[in-house]
Amino acid sequence: MIRKFALAGVLAAGLALPAMALQQETTPDPVTTFDLKNGMQVVVIEDHRAPVVEHMVWYKIGSADEPVGSSGVAHFLEHLMFKDTDNMKSGELSATVAANGGQDNAFTSYDYTAYFQRVAADRLGLMMKMEADRMTHLRLTENDIATERDVILEERNMRTDNNPRALFTEQMNAVQYLNHRYGVPVIGWKHEMEELDRADALNFYHTYYAPNNAVLVVAGDVSPDEVKALAEQYYGVIPANDNLPPRLRAQEPPQIAARRLTYKDARVAQPYVSRSYLAPERDPGDQKAAAALYLLAQILGGGQTSYLAQKLQFDSRVAVFSGAFYSGTSLDKTTFNLAVVPVDGVSLADAEAAMDAALAQFMQDGVDPDQLARIKLQLRAAQIYERDNVAGIADRYGRALTTSLTVADVQAWPDLLQQVTAEDIMAQATKVLRPEASVTGWLMRGEAPEGAQVQPVSQLPMQQEVTQ
Amino acid sequence: MIRKFALAGVLAAGLALPAMALQQETTPDPVTTFDLKNGMQVVVIEDHRAPVVEHMVWYKIGSADEPVGSSGVAHFLEHLMFKDTDNMKSGELSATVAANGGQDNAFTSYDYTAYFQRVAADRLGLMMKMEADRMTHLRLTENDIATERDVILEERNMRTDNNPRALFTEQMNAVQYLNHRYGVPVIGWKHEMEELDRADALNFYHTYYAPNNAVLVVAGDVSPDEVKALAEQYYGVIPANDNLPPRLRAQEPPQIAARRLTYKDARVAQPYVSRSYLAPERDPGDQKAAAALYLLAQILGGGQTSYLAQKLQFDSRVAVFSGAFYSGTSLDKTTFNLAVVPVDGVSLADAEAAMDAALAQFMQDGVDPDQLARIKLQLRAAQIYERDNVAGIADRYGRALTTSLTVADVQAWPDLLQQVTAEDIMAQATKVLRPEASVTGWLMRGEAPEGAQVQPVSQLPMQQEVTQ
Repeated sequence: MIRKFALAGVLAAGLALPAMALQQETTPDPVTTFDLKNGMQVVVIEDHRAPVVEHMVWYKIGSADEPVGSSGVAHFLEHLMFKDTDNMKSGELSATVAANGGQDNAFTSYDYTAYFQRVAADRLGLMMKMEADRMTHLRLTENDIATERDVILEERNMRTDNNPRALFTEQMNAVQYLNHRYGVPVIGWKHEMEELDRADALNFYHTYYAPNNAVLVVAGDVSPDEVKALAEQYYGVIPANDNLPPRLRAQEPPQIAARRLTYKDARVAQPYVSRSYLAPERDPGDQKAAAALYLLAQILGGGQTSYLAQKLQFDSRVAVFSGAFYSGTSLDKTTFNLAVVPVDGVSLADAEAAMDAALAQFMQDGVDPDQLARIKLQLRAAQIYERDNVAGIADRYGRALTTSLTVADVQAWPDLLQQVTAEDIMAQATKVLRPEASVTGWLMRGEAPEGAQVQPVSQLPMQQEVTQ
Repeated sequence: MIRKFALAGVLAAGLALPAMALQQETTPDPVTTFDLKNGMQVVVIEDHRAPVVEHMVWYKIGSADEPVGSSGVAHFLEHLMFKDTDNMKSGELSATVAANGGQDNAFTSYDYTAYFQRVAADRLGLMMKMEADRMTHLRLTENDIATERDVILEERNMRTDNNPRALFTEQMNAVQYLNHRYGVPVIGWKHEMEELDRADALNFYHTYYAPNNAVLVVAGDVSPDEVKALAEQYYGVIPANDNLPPRLRAQEPPQIAARRLTYKDARVAQPYVSRSYLAPERDPGDQKAAAALYLLAQILGGGQTSYLAQKLQFDSRVAVFSGAFYSGTSLDKTTFNLAVVPVDGVSLADAEAAMDAALAQFMQDGVDPDQLARIKLQLRAAQIYERDNVAGIADRYGRALTTSLTVADVQAWPDLLQQVTAEDIMAQATKVLRPEASVTGWLMRGEAPEGAQVQPVSQLPMQQEVTQ
């Protein structure tokens, strides 16, 4: 599974919460963390409301760590991890989870690969036994390789090549990053995926799949002591890989030239303008810029009451949708994104001009203090509700710990968001919204390529694809 | 030395040659080739008019073969090759060449690194002795590393960072190549050059500097037998590297989105429009597309009588310069380039529109048979005169043999150019001049960056920078 996640829903929940509850400082997540002796990090999130558990193993390895020319191998290996091991038959792990009434899956992104099962809490040991087994005992037959390569190629075909928006986003990323591997799609370039072989997958597996490169996250009806005992039993016996390579990636040179691209496709039902700016990410102990950018995205384009929506959808009525997106949970430099979908009859040139005029006006107007206060209130509310969703918390820690952040950084984040000032936001807007570091893209209705079927693209670009 | 070479001068020489001499088939170059037992290729070009010799060693390794994150290491090592070896002191090789009345230098490009000396013919053995020595006995002190890293950083500063056209070209290449290493500059990204260390240089040296990865080219007053005897004596004793990695590079995905960029710099005296298209290169036994593209570049933009010059400089008078550039001697996919420098008062938008209108008109008009015949005649003439320039022939073989071509390919090339038809040229124009595979750049006069000095940029963009 290639991971995408929507930012849109995050804020919706908190609106009706009584204001009183929101004045208090954030209570810390019900989280316990420790390391095993072999270097495996463990995060336990307690939630005893239901007798279920979510068991996740996150590897600090993603598509941006792949060898040159082997794009897609991280995701390919994710698929292959469901095949034969020394102790399980191909498909046995998922079948066992299902037989025990649970679900399982996995996902890959630029910075991490993760495997999870959701199952009755008394099955946790069984989950660990199977997950630990495939951490070290994966076999790979040539038959598995050939079959699963066809599967990922078909996945690319369905998710990317048959989706003009996905192709467009892929091109935007490729032009945004001049040197960094985030310019290469998580699923891989097709011509490189076709060449992936057993040696590629095994090398990647033996190099990066080890307890000292993994984070175990367990959330649900468990105690930290129980988890510790089981983790030591199943994962603690696996030796660390002493030759784990450092995570060094090629970084961007200064971005000094504004870039544009147009992608035309007969299958485009809804043309739109996309803009991305290179932007800083959350770094350990250094998350203030990211917090300000997170609020900037909410203010500019976080829903119907945002600045761009007001200007483009309600005042000038040039757009049916506008949005701003920023996640910041990324090992290296990420992007700050804008999108404007014009109403019928408004050209992309006019939509872009209106967007740039609105941005310029925003730089003059500055942050509306009422809007900022409202957004902070909504964030607090959302964070309180989020605590009911242990899977969400598990996900948050997994993503953070695989992108260089610490437990302390995760716990500091909500308060850092509350501390952001209007000045912080405008300072980041000035710093990040630089044309020289931007790509502007037009997704356009174009000529039908030979043999292509025209299909309407119904979804609006409401998801950020920083983590695909 | 970072290699650039001008295409402009190639045709100028032949204009006054009597037509009669040009009717004959090309006589083959005075070239002898053979391999040493350790796999080193040898090319000997005889020219007994003067008692001098050019001795070159070309390595099949260039910047596009560098490890990710270590851009510039090929060129860095080229500099370091003039330092201490087990048998020579730092600078001793060049001093010895000079003391013998000769000259020496070296250059690096995407696909090759080459070292050469021009000296009296009876010193050939001495040259080989020294060149063979530094092929295997390079020492590298930390002091050499620190000193020479400053030298290459200053070289980048002078050649690139103080030259808006070079910065612009660097950005154009980075946006042209979405996946291939040709998008990274030969000299390196500054932030990566700063991190280059002794281990980077030594690893690159030990991996790639070996006789089975090298081509010896000797041109001048020598006989093949003499060269063979000396080459066996000095180079033949060096063992082959049995672990030489195959030359596998990440290739481009389909290019499907037209790209643009603008680079603004206060130091720009002469704004211009640049266009590059991804284009096929010369491949072993498969050079016809490249030959057609070579002629297309001549027809469209090879001097004052070209199609673009006629349309843009003489008919509509929007441009002071226009040009088309294509070399094709490249291991992987290369570019076909256009440039238009508008007259004062004509905007870049108008210059680009005029260029695109002229291209569209050309696609309708097709190739003028008289112009094609004239260009072929000039090429024949140029090739005949080129035979007087053994350094040029040596260079031609070195570049070809380090970019996968064979001696037979080099020798077939002149006749292939003569065989190109108008239909071949239009077929390639249709295939290659696709907006989806293009980057259009505007180099513009912009705001002065802080602390920058405004300097006029006097040279026009008359060089192709395919091999930097």
